[in-house]
Amino acid sequence: MRHTISVLVENKFGVLARISTLFAARGFNIDSLAVGETEDSAISRMTIVVKGDDSVLEQVTKQLNKLVDVIKVNDFNGVEYVERGLALVKINAPKAVRAEIFKMAGIFRTRVVDIAQDSLTVEVTGGEDKIEAFIEAASSYGIKEVCRTGVVALSRGNKQ
Amino acid sequence: MRHTISVLVENKFGVLARISTLFAARGFNIDSLAVGETEDSAISRMTIVVKGDDSVLEQVTKQLNKLVDVIKVNDFNGVEYVERGLALVKINAPKAVRAEIFKMAGIFRTRVVDIAQDSLTVEVTGGEDKIEAFIEAASSYGIKEVCRTGVVALSRGNKQ
Repeated sequence: MRHTISVLVENKFGVLARISTLFAARGFNIDSLAVGETEDSAISRMTIVVKGDDSVLEQVTKQLNKLVDVIKVNDFNGVEYVERGLALVKINAPKAVRAEIFKMAGIFRTRVVDIAQDSLTVEVTGGEDKIEAFIEAASSYGIKEVCRTGVVALSRGNKQ
Repeated sequence: MRHTISVLVENKFGVLARISTLFAARGFNIDSLAVGETEDSAISRMTIVVKGDDSVLEQVTKQLNKLVDVIKVNDFNGVEYVERGLALVKINAPKAVRAEIFKMAGIFRTRVVDIAQDSLTVEVTGGEDKIEAFIEAASSYGIKEVCRTGVVALSRGNKQ
Protein backbone atom coordinates (compact mmCIF):
# COMPACT_ATOMS: atom_id res chain seq x y z
CA MET A 1 0.00 0.00 0.00
CA ARG A 2 1.07 3.57 -0.68
CA HIS A 3 2.05 5.57 2.41
CA THR A 4 2.95 9.22 2.81
CA ILE A 5 5.10 9.68 5.89
CA SER A 6 6.26 12.93 7.40
CA VAL A 7 9.38 12.89 9.59
CA LEU A 8 10.48 15.90 11.63
CA VAL A 9 14.23 15.74 12.22
CA GLU A 10 17.06 17.81 13.65
CA ASN A 11 18.74 19.64 10.78
CA LYS A 12 22.15 17.95 11.17
CA PHE A 13 24.39 16.20 8.70
CA GLY A 14 24.08 12.44 8.51
CA VAL A 15 20.40 12.30 9.45
CA LEU A 16 19.26 11.81 5.87
CA ALA A 17 21.85 9.07 5.38
CA ARG A 18 20.68 7.21 8.51
CA ILE A 19 17.02 7.43 7.56
CA SER A 20 17.48 6.40 3.93
CA THR A 21 19.71 3.51 5.02
CA LEU A 22 16.95 2.33 7.35
CA PHE A 23 14.45 2.17 4.47
CA ALA A 24 16.96 0.52 2.13
CA ALA A 25 17.86 -2.13 4.73
CA ARG A 26 14.20 -3.20 4.79
CA GLY A 27 14.01 -3.29 1.01
CA PHE A 28 11.81 -0.23 0.63
CA ASN A 29 12.38 1.91 -2.41
CA ILE A 30 11.49 5.54 -1.72
CA ASP A 31 9.18 6.68 -4.55
CA SER A 32 9.34 10.33 -3.72
CA LEU A 33 11.23 12.35 -1.15
CA ALA A 34 11.15 15.99 -0.17
CA VAL A 35 13.50 17.50 2.38
CA GLY A 36 13.31 21.11 3.47
CA GLU A 37 13.63 23.38 6.45
CA THR A 38 10.57 24.15 8.54
CA GLU A 39 9.74 27.56 10.06
CA ASP A 40 12.52 26.70 12.53
CA SER A 41 15.80 26.40 10.61
CA ALA A 42 17.16 23.92 13.18
CA ILE A 43 14.44 21.47 12.21
CA SER A 44 13.83 19.86 8.82
CA ARG A 45 10.87 17.91 7.59
CA MET A 46 11.20 14.90 5.30
CA THR A 47 8.16 13.78 3.40
CA ILE A 48 8.58 10.23 2.16
CA VAL A 49 6.29 8.27 -0.16
CA VAL A 50 6.78 4.50 -0.13
CA LYS A 51 4.81 1.53 -1.36
CA GLY A 52 5.09 -1.73 0.46
CA ASP A 53 3.96 -4.15 3.08
CA ASP A 54 2.04 -2.40 5.89
CA SER A 55 3.43 -4.47 8.75
CA VAL A 56 7.05 -4.04 7.62
CA LEU A 57 6.47 -0.32 7.27
CA GLU A 58 5.11 -0.22 10.80
CA GLN A 59 8.43 -1.66 11.99
CA VAL A 60 10.36 0.93 9.98
CA THR A 61 8.28 3.69 11.56
CA LYS A 62 9.03 2.31 15.02
CA GLN A 63 12.75 2.25 14.25
CA LEU A 64 12.59 5.81 12.92
CA ASN A 65 11.08 6.91 16.21
CA LYS A 66 14.08 5.42 18.02
CA LEU A 67 16.66 7.48 16.09
CA VAL A 68 18.12 10.27 18.22
CA ASP A 69 17.67 13.03 15.66
CA VAL A 70 14.06 12.14 14.84
CA ILE A 71 11.55 14.37 16.60
CA LYS A 72 8.24 13.08 15.25
CA VAL A 73 6.96 10.58 12.69
CA ASN A 74 3.54 10.92 11.09
CA ASP A 75 1.86 8.47 8.74
CA PHE A 76 -0.93 10.22 6.83
CA ASN A 77 -2.78 6.95 6.26
CA GLY A 78 -6.37 7.31 7.41
CA VAL A 79 -6.01 11.06 7.88
CA GLU A 80 -7.50 13.78 5.65
CA TYR A 81 -4.61 15.63 4.12
CA VAL A 82 -3.47 17.85 1.27
CA GLU A 83 -0.60 16.59 -0.88
CA ARG A 84 1.27 18.72 -3.40
CA GLY A 85 4.38 18.49 -5.51
CA LEU A 86 5.95 20.45 -8.33
CA ALA A 87 7.50 19.56 -11.66
CA LEU A 88 9.46 21.55 -14.21
CA VAL A 89 8.81 20.20 -17.70
CA LYS A 90 10.76 21.32 -20.78
CA ILE A 91 8.59 20.65 -23.83
CA ASN A 92 9.48 20.73 -27.53
CA ALA A 93 7.61 23.75 -28.87
CA PRO A 94 8.30 24.74 -32.45
CA LYS A 95 6.24 27.76 -33.54
CA ALA A 96 3.59 25.69 -35.31
CA VAL A 97 2.34 24.03 -32.10
CA ARG A 98 3.26 26.69 -29.56
CA ALA A 99 -0.27 28.16 -29.27
CA GLU A 100 -1.67 24.68 -28.77
CA ILE A 101 0.81 23.98 -25.96
CA PHE A 102 -0.02 27.28 -24.23
CA LYS A 103 -3.67 26.26 -24.26
CA MET A 104 -2.95 22.81 -22.85
CA ALA A 105 -0.69 24.38 -20.20
CA GLY A 106 -3.51 26.76 -19.26
CA ILE A 107 -5.99 23.94 -18.74
CA PHE A 108 -3.62 22.43 -16.17
CA ARG A 109 -3.14 25.87 -14.55
CA THR A 110 0.59 25.68 -15.08
CA ARG A 111 3.00 28.61 -15.30
CA VAL A 112 5.44 29.11 -18.15
CA VAL A 113 8.84 29.84 -16.58
CA ASP A 114 11.13 29.88 -19.63
CA ILE A 115 10.75 30.29 -23.37
CA ALA A 116 13.45 29.41 -25.89
CA GLN A 117 13.57 29.09 -29.67
CA ASP A 118 12.17 25.58 -29.80
CA SER A 119 11.06 24.82 -26.28
CA LEU A 120 8.96 25.97 -23.36
CA THR A 121 9.60 25.21 -19.70
CA VAL A 122 6.49 24.92 -17.60
CA GLU A 123 5.94 24.68 -13.83
CA VAL A 124 3.08 22.41 -12.82
CA THR A 125 1.90 21.79 -9.25
CA GLY A 126 -0.58 19.35 -7.78
CA GLY A 127 -0.96 15.86 -6.45
CA GLU A 128 1.01 13.06 -8.12
CA ASP A 129 -1.94 12.18 -10.36
CA LYS A 130 -2.26 15.67 -11.77
CA ILE A 131 1.46 15.98 -12.41
CA GLU A 132 1.49 12.61 -14.16
CA ALA A 133 -1.53 13.58 -16.26
CA PHE A 134 0.24 16.75 -17.35
CA ILE A 135 3.45 14.93 -18.22
CA GLU A 136 1.44 12.49 -20.32
CA ALA A 137 -0.38 15.30 -22.12
CA ALA A 138 2.92 17.12 -22.75
CA SER A 139 4.63 13.97 -24.02
CA SER A 140 2.62 14.09 -27.24
CA TYR A 141 4.70 17.17 -28.17
CA GLY A 142 7.96 15.58 -27.04
CA ILE A 143 9.51 16.18 -23.63
CA LYS A 144 13.13 17.31 -23.42
CA GLU A 145 13.46 17.07 -19.65
CA VAL A 146 11.40 16.57 -16.48
CA CYS A 147 12.44 17.44 -12.97
CA ARG A 148 10.04 16.60 -10.12
CA THR A 149 10.13 17.45 -6.44
CA GLY A 150 8.77 14.84 -4.10
CA VAL A 151 5.34 15.61 -2.68
CA VAL A 152 4.78 17.36 0.65
CA ALA A 153 1.70 16.90 2.79
CA LEU A 154 -0.19 18.66 5.58
CA SER A 155 -3.30 17.45 7.39
CA ARG A 156 -6.54 19.24 6.54
CA GLY A 157 -8.31 21.41 9.10
CA ASN A 158 -6.97 23.28 12.11
CA LYS A 159 -4.91 20.56 13.72
CA GLN A 160 -1.18 20.34 13.40
CA MET B 1 29.39 28.49 -1.82
CA ARG B 2 25.87 27.34 -2.64
CA HIS B 3 25.61 24.63 -5.30
CA THR B 4 22.58 23.11 -6.96
CA ILE B 5 23.43 19.65 -8.23
CA SER B 6 21.28 17.39 -10.33
CA VAL B 7 21.97 13.64 -10.25
CA LEU B 8 20.30 11.21 -12.63
CA VAL B 9 20.17 7.75 -11.04
CA GLU B 10 18.75 4.31 -11.64
CA ASN B 11 15.48 4.05 -9.73
CA LYS B 12 16.62 1.22 -7.41
CA PHE B 13 16.53 0.85 -3.67
CA GLY B 14 19.64 1.79 -1.79
CA VAL B 15 20.79 4.46 -4.27
CA LEU B 16 19.55 7.32 -2.10
CA ALA B 17 21.25 5.81 0.95
CA ARG B 18 24.57 5.50 -0.87
CA ILE B 19 24.46 9.05 -2.19
CA SER B 20 23.43 10.68 1.08
CA THR B 21 26.11 8.68 2.92
CA LEU B 22 28.69 10.03 0.49
CA PHE B 23 27.74 13.62 1.31
CA ALA B 24 27.57 12.95 5.05
CA ALA B 25 31.00 11.29 5.05
CA ARG B 26 32.47 14.53 3.67
CA GLY B 27 30.67 16.61 6.26
CA PHE B 28 28.18 18.18 3.85
CA ASN B 29 24.74 18.91 5.18
CA ILE B 30 22.14 18.75 2.43
CA ASP B 31 20.07 21.95 2.62
CA SER B 32 17.37 20.82 0.29
CA LEU B 33 16.71 17.60 -1.56
CA ALA B 34 14.13 16.60 -4.11
CA VAL B 35 13.79 13.09 -5.47
CA GLY B 36 11.32 12.14 -8.15
CA GLU B 37 10.86 9.99 -11.21
CA THR B 38 11.71 11.41 -14.62
CA GLU B 39 9.72 10.81 -17.81
CA ASP B 40 11.29 7.34 -17.70
CA SER B 41 10.08 5.57 -14.53
CA ALA B 42 13.30 3.49 -14.37
CA ILE B 43 15.29 6.69 -13.83
CA SER B 44 15.02 9.17 -10.97
CA ARG B 45 16.48 12.60 -10.63
CA MET B 46 17.83 13.93 -7.35
CA THR B 47 18.26 17.69 -7.01
CA ILE B 48 20.58 18.50 -4.13
CA VAL B 49 21.38 21.92 -2.69
CA VAL B 50 24.53 22.08 -0.55
CA LYS B 51 26.71 24.84 0.79
CA GLY B 52 30.38 24.21 1.34
CA ASP B 53 33.91 24.21 0.12
CA ASP B 54 34.14 24.13 -3.70
CA SER B 55 37.16 21.82 -3.92
CA VAL B 56 35.68 19.26 -1.52
CA LEU B 57 32.42 19.36 -3.44
CA GLU B 58 34.32 18.70 -6.66
CA GLN B 59 35.67 15.53 -5.06
CA VAL B 60 32.18 14.50 -3.98
CA THR B 61 30.95 15.03 -7.54
CA LYS B 62 33.76 12.85 -8.88
CA GLN B 63 32.87 10.11 -6.40
CA LEU B 64 29.20 10.38 -7.36
CA ASN B 65 30.15 9.80 -10.98
CA LYS B 66 31.90 6.57 -9.96
CA LEU B 67 28.79 5.05 -8.33
CA VAL B 68 27.32 2.28 -10.49
CA ASP B 69 23.73 3.54 -10.33
CA VAL B 70 24.60 7.15 -11.14
CA ILE B 71 23.95 8.03 -14.78
CA LYS B 72 24.86 11.73 -14.87
CA VAL B 73 25.87 14.50 -12.48
CA ASN B 74 25.26 18.16 -13.28
CA ASP B 75 26.39 21.16 -11.25
CA PHE B 76 24.36 24.22 -12.23
CA ASN B 77 27.11 26.60 -11.13
CA GLY B 78 27.91 29.02 -13.96
CA VAL B 79 24.92 27.87 -16.00
CA GLU B 80 21.71 29.81 -16.55
CA TYR B 81 18.92 27.85 -14.96
CA VAL B 82 15.43 27.97 -13.51
CA GLU B 83 14.98 26.82 -9.91
CA ARG B 84 11.62 26.18 -8.30
CA GLY B 85 10.29 24.66 -5.11
CA LEU B 86 6.96 24.44 -3.34
CA ALA B 87 5.79 24.96 0.22
CA LEU B 88 2.51 24.25 1.98
CA VAL B 89 1.97 26.79 4.76
CA LYS B 90 -0.84 26.52 7.33
CA ILE B 91 -1.51 30.02 8.68
CA ASN B 92 -3.60 31.12 11.66
CA ALA B 93 -6.56 32.88 10.10
CA PRO B 94 -9.34 33.95 12.45
CA LYS B 95 -12.18 35.75 10.63
CA ALA B 96 -10.93 39.24 11.53
CA VAL B 97 -7.72 38.96 9.51
CA ARG B 98 -8.79 36.47 6.87
CA ALA B 99 -9.37 39.07 4.14
CA GLU B 100 -5.97 40.56 4.83
CA ILE B 101 -4.31 37.16 4.49
CA PHE B 102 -6.10 36.46 1.21
CA LYS B 103 -4.73 39.74 -0.12
CA MET B 104 -1.18 38.96 1.01
CA ALA B 105 -1.48 35.45 -0.46
CA GLY B 106 -2.62 37.00 -3.75
CA ILE B 107 0.42 39.28 -3.95
CA PHE B 108 2.66 36.21 -3.76
CA ARG B 109 0.51 34.45 -6.40
CA THR B 110 -0.15 31.56 -4.02
CA ARG B 111 -3.09 29.18 -4.14
CA VAL B 112 -5.32 28.47 -1.17
CA VAL B 113 -5.64 24.68 -0.91
CA ASP B 114 -7.57 24.27 2.37
CA ILE B 115 -9.77 26.43 4.58
CA ALA B 116 -10.69 25.56 8.16
CA GLN B 117 -12.37 27.41 11.01
CA ASP B 118 -9.26 29.23 12.16
CA SER B 119 -6.66 28.49 9.52
CA LEU B 120 -5.83 28.62 5.85
CA THR B 121 -3.42 26.34 4.02
CA VAL B 122 -1.66 27.97 1.12
CA GLU B 123 0.55 26.56 -1.67
CA VAL B 124 3.42 28.83 -2.68
CA THR B 125 5.94 28.13 -5.44
CA GLY B 126 9.12 29.89 -6.50
CA GLY B 127 12.80 30.08 -5.83
CA GLU B 128 14.06 29.68 -2.26
CA ASP B 129 14.09 33.46 -1.75
CA LYS B 130 10.46 33.90 -2.70
CA ILE B 131 9.32 31.01 -0.54
CA GLU B 132 11.27 32.41 2.40
CA ALA B 133 9.83 35.89 1.84
CA PHE B 134 6.32 34.44 1.89
CA ILE B 135 6.95 32.44 5.06
CA GLU B 136 8.24 35.59 6.72
CA ALA B 137 5.21 37.60 5.63
CA ALA B 138 2.86 34.85 6.82
CA SER B 139 4.63 34.54 10.17
CA SER B 140 3.19 37.86 11.35
CA TYR B 141 -0.20 36.05 11.49
CA GLY B 142 1.25 32.98 13.15
CA ILE B 143 2.23 29.85 11.26
CA LYS B 144 0.88 26.51 12.38
CA GLU B 145 2.94 24.35 10.06
CA VAL B 146 5.28 24.57 7.08
CA CYS B 147 6.18 21.76 4.71
CA ARG B 148 8.69 22.49 1.93
CA THR B 149 9.85 20.43 -1.01
CA GLY B 150 13.45 20.80 -2.02
CA VAL B 151 14.03 22.87 -5.16
CA VAL B 152 14.32 21.38 -8.62
CA ALA B 153 16.25 22.99 -11.45
CA LEU B 154 16.45 22.88 -15.24
CA SER B 155 18.86 24.79 -17.48
CA ARG B 156 17.37 27.68 -19.44
CA GLY B 157 17.08 27.55 -23.21
CA ASN B 158 16.86 24.60 -25.58
CA LYS B 159 19.69 22.48 -24.27
CA GLN B 160 19.12 19.50 -22.05
